[in-house]
Amino acid sequence: MLHIDLNCDMGEGFGAYRLGRDEELLDYVSSANIACGFHAGDPGTMRRTVELCVRKGVAIGAHPGLPDLQGFGRRELAISAEEAYELTLYQLGALQAFAHAAGGRVSHVKPHGALYHMAAKRHDLAAAIAAAVASVSAELTLYGPPGSELLRAGAAAGLRTASEAFADRTYRRDGSLTPREQPGALLESAAAAAAQVERLVREGSVLSLEGEEVSLRAETICIHGDGAHAVEFARDIRSLLERGGIAVKALGAS
Amino acid sequence: MLHIDLNCDMGEGFGAYRLGRDEELLDYVSSANIACGFHAGDPGTMRRTVELCVRKGVAIGAHPGLPDLQGFGRRELAISAEEAYELTLYQLGALQAFAHAAGGRVSHVKPHGALYHMAAKRHDLAAAIAAAVASVSAELTLYGPPGSELLRAGAAAGLRTASEAFADRTYRRDGSLTPREQPGALLESAAAAAAQVERLVREGSVLSLEGEEVSLRAETICIHGDGAHAVEFARDIRSLLERGGIAVKALGAS
Amino acid sequence: MLHIDLNCDMGEGFGAYRLGRDEELLDYVSSANIACGFHAGDPGTMRRTVELCVRKGVAIGAHPGLPDLQGFGRRELAISAEEAYELTLYQLGALQAFAHAAGGRVSHVKPHGALYHMAAKRHDLAAAIAAAVASVSAELTLYGPPGSELLRAGAAAGLRTASEAFADRTYRRDGSLTPREQPGALLESAAAAAAQVERLVREGSVLSLEGEEVSLRAETICIHGDGAHAVEFARDIRSLLERGGIAVKALGAS
Amino acid sequence: MLHIDLNCDMGEGFGAYRLGRDEELLDYVSSANIACGFHAGDPGTMRRTVELCVRKGVAIGAHPGLPDLQGFGRRELAISAEEAYELTLYQLGALQAFAHAAGGRVSHVKPHGALYHMAAKRHDLAAAIAAAVASVSAELTLYGPPGSELLRAGAAAGLRTASEAFADRTYRRDGSLTPREQPGALLESAAAAAAQVERLVREGSVLSLEGEEVSLRAETICIHGDGAHAVEFARDIRSLLERGGIAVKALGAS
Repeated sequence: MLHIDLNCDMGEGFGAYRLGRDEELLDYVSSANIACGFHAGDPGTMRRTVELCVRKGVAIGAHPGLPDLQGFGRRELAISAEEAYELTLYQLGALQAFAHAAGGRVSHVKPHGALYHMAAKRHDLAAAIAAAVASVSAELTLYGPPGSELLRAGAAAGLRTASEAFADRTYRRDGSLTPREQPGALLESAAAAAAQVERLVREGSVLSLEGEEVSLRAETICIHGDGAHAVEFARDIRSLLERGGIAVKALGAS
Repeated sequence: MLHIDLNCDMGEGFGAYRLGRDEELLDYVSSANIACGFHAGDPGTMRRTVELCVRKGVAIGAHPGLPDLQGFGRRELAISAEEAYELTLYQLGALQAFAHAAGGRVSHVKPHGALYHMAAKRHDLAAAIAAAVASVSAELTLYGPPGSELLRAGAAAGLRTASEAFADRTYRRDGSLTPREQPGALLESAAAAAAQVERLVREGSVLSLEGEEVSLRAETICIHGDGAHAVEFARDIRSLLERGGIAVKALGAS
Repeated sequence: MLHIDLNCDMGEGFGAYRLGRDEELLDYVSSANIACGFHAGDPGTMRRTVELCVRKGVAIGAHPGLPDLQGFGRRELAISAEEAYELTLYQLGALQAFAHAAGGRVSHVKPHGALYHMAAKRHDLAAAIAAAVASVSAELTLYGPPGSELLRAGAAAGLRTASEAFADRTYRRDGSLTPREQPGALLESAAAAAAQVERLVREGSVLSLEGEEVSLRAETICIHGDGAHAVEFARDIRSLLERGGIAVKALGAS
Repeated sequence: MLHIDLNCDMGEGFGAYRLGRDEELLDYVSSANIACGFHAGDPGTMRRTVELCVRKGVAIGAHPGLPDLQGFGRRELAISAEEAYELTLYQLGALQAFAHAAGGRVSHVKPHGALYHMAAKRHDLAAAIAAAVASVSAELTLYGPPGSELLRAGAAAGLRTASEAFADRTYRRDGSLTPREQPGALLESAAAAAAQVERLVREGSVLSLEGEEVSLRAETICIHGDGAHAVEFARDIRSLLERGGIAVKALGAS
């Protein structure tokens, strides 16, 4: 049976601040990327999120970010490769302890925000992140954009990698995402998003904004957890995929 | 042969800030309590400190603190037991990743500053910290003051515990430390400190400030890493102990 | 005409995190206590909140808190009087710059959370906070609980003070608040809250939970900005007060 | 009589961390750029540093930095112009309160580290910083590199500006600093540094690394406060300048 991994960023509150309806979303996704305290997340939020994942059978992933809580990890920061290695190791280790204490284990790593974008392009950062992940466990899967330095570095480090596409973002002719500020950047309906995911799974392609079929490898699909209708969107996509004969399950799941 | 563990707080710099002559001190102590990023320490400092410990054969310990960098973890903060559990787990997990990556392993946990003092007296905090440590590994040793809630909680959680005395602090008749602001609180010479350690090892006692012999169980001895002469002090104590026939080695060391 | 000041905590988001419907609440309160970056708030949030206050004619107040973003400033931290002085001065100064840049001015100071509660009881902290406020301007008003050290210290420092009661919290026979965890601690309806405020303004008293009339001086009334119905609650209280002949206006307002 | 301003970064400790021998350096410089809590500095350090400046008659300057304590404000962070405005206003306001409380006043603003370098090149950031400074007071002087966007923006905002050169850094043919990692980047002796300053004051030029005379406008000279011999270096430069007939005094000083 065909299947795909649906992942979502989770545990992105901090202290008194809540963000996203994690508990409900966890009913529909197969993998959670959990903030680890740098761009968002705190020890209490991490513990609760990890426990929810264990209870709901959702794969636990580390979602390490830049040390920029004020900017939610979205602003590029000129870190060195050494710093990328160290902050990945730190955050991944912290999450591992919560996973272990809850009777689970960390299965994947997806860098957050500006760290994800920087590591997609810069080889040195990608290699440093991959080295940090590999030094923790060769069993971990590294998520990254299709064709990115991150995926290349993960493979070179002996890690499993997962090429990530977005359910509700459109793509351009060259396989890159339509920038958010451009018209047509977002697929508004769950039906359109599910159709895009189905094509990714069945054909290994997307229809670009211009209407052309573009090859795109997607082993995991990112669903957004923010937005007023994120839960309904996740529920509908999952339900449409399943009706179309595509199971939603985490990468290593049996 | 008689032996004792000498421990010292390490890796307590932050970013551009350096604190203590860790590299030199590591030649004389057997256990390092490494700051984990809350009261002090950052991923880079943690990595370097852990790597030094591995290279010099010094036991690696987690030194989790309160989330109060501005106060260096020395100000009591009204955290709940749940928060104590979570912040211990987080910091311990982060350090584990560095230890693992450097080819070492974490062997003990010693809470820092106000967290140490609060957990020595409050059962709920002590139990939470012990639970966090035990959930990571039953092989870890928990350090705490003689007769403290911390040691009791550690034992109750099935952990090995180590009762900690200070080389250069004096004790009162009731076995408590002479408060720092009182005259005679500190032993100024390495010879006097070494003599106190020797008595702790051989007799299981200290001479109180009033001159009386007071029973005191000490399985590990804390050496201060700050102060202008910390390195010379550590070197002299170790050398005096060894000349007196007492080996300096970590608790689990063969 | 009778009148009263309605104050509300504002600007308590941080970075990507939003908290409270400040813009709407500002239509109903006369004074805003603006978070200054320690327990909550960041420069951008402060700027926007101050600008809204200026536009809506709401009095700008500093709401300094403990340096504990993770705990939202609600956990007691063992700071010295000197540290209380310094953190108040720092946060008040930062807010002043935003007020000045927006064409407004800071009119009052209300410490936040644990700092408020600690300074209500501890003379040294209260005096330090009052000294910090007075060193900035003798024109500032210091808010505090009725009969508190904070009000006494403010008066001793030559400041105007404002005794603060709560619209939706009940009081006990001794004039203290019913603890939140007890039944009856909260007035659920805007009508009951407005009635309590009206009695405070007209009679200088509250009806205790036990039904007795208790003298209570209230120069300002705190409205909560969180909760699902905070805006409707604020609107209704204001409207009920005005219908009852009590104007809502800031303390120094003409 | 000829004169020049010697400025130095100050108050760059944080909590338990100390950095630099500020108290001694303040005997030799005429202007202090005081860290304001983002890249370094905390309320206590700010208070003490400002009080020292008042006592020693040294001009007080704000030294706002990026919100990156871990990186000491030296790593570029992709902030918007709006964020540059807000963080400058925040930090400047905080320092003003300390200056006012100590009986002094802030006389200048010099951005720190990566913020300084980014604002030297990017017009939007420079304009935002200048606008923040001007909104606080038109009497403030903005420091920046010769010919930088920062100086241009300051002038456009109606501020006084001060073109800054370095005492112990060498310059290249095009007037830019020799990069630190290149040989000859630093002048090692106080005599050489004093000679460079004297030429800047008398001729408005430097001798480039290649030996050519290069025009360079310098209204203030930066002395480094870190390094083992910073105090002796500052003392010697000042003494050599004074012997050469050049007084050291702050820009607005009479």
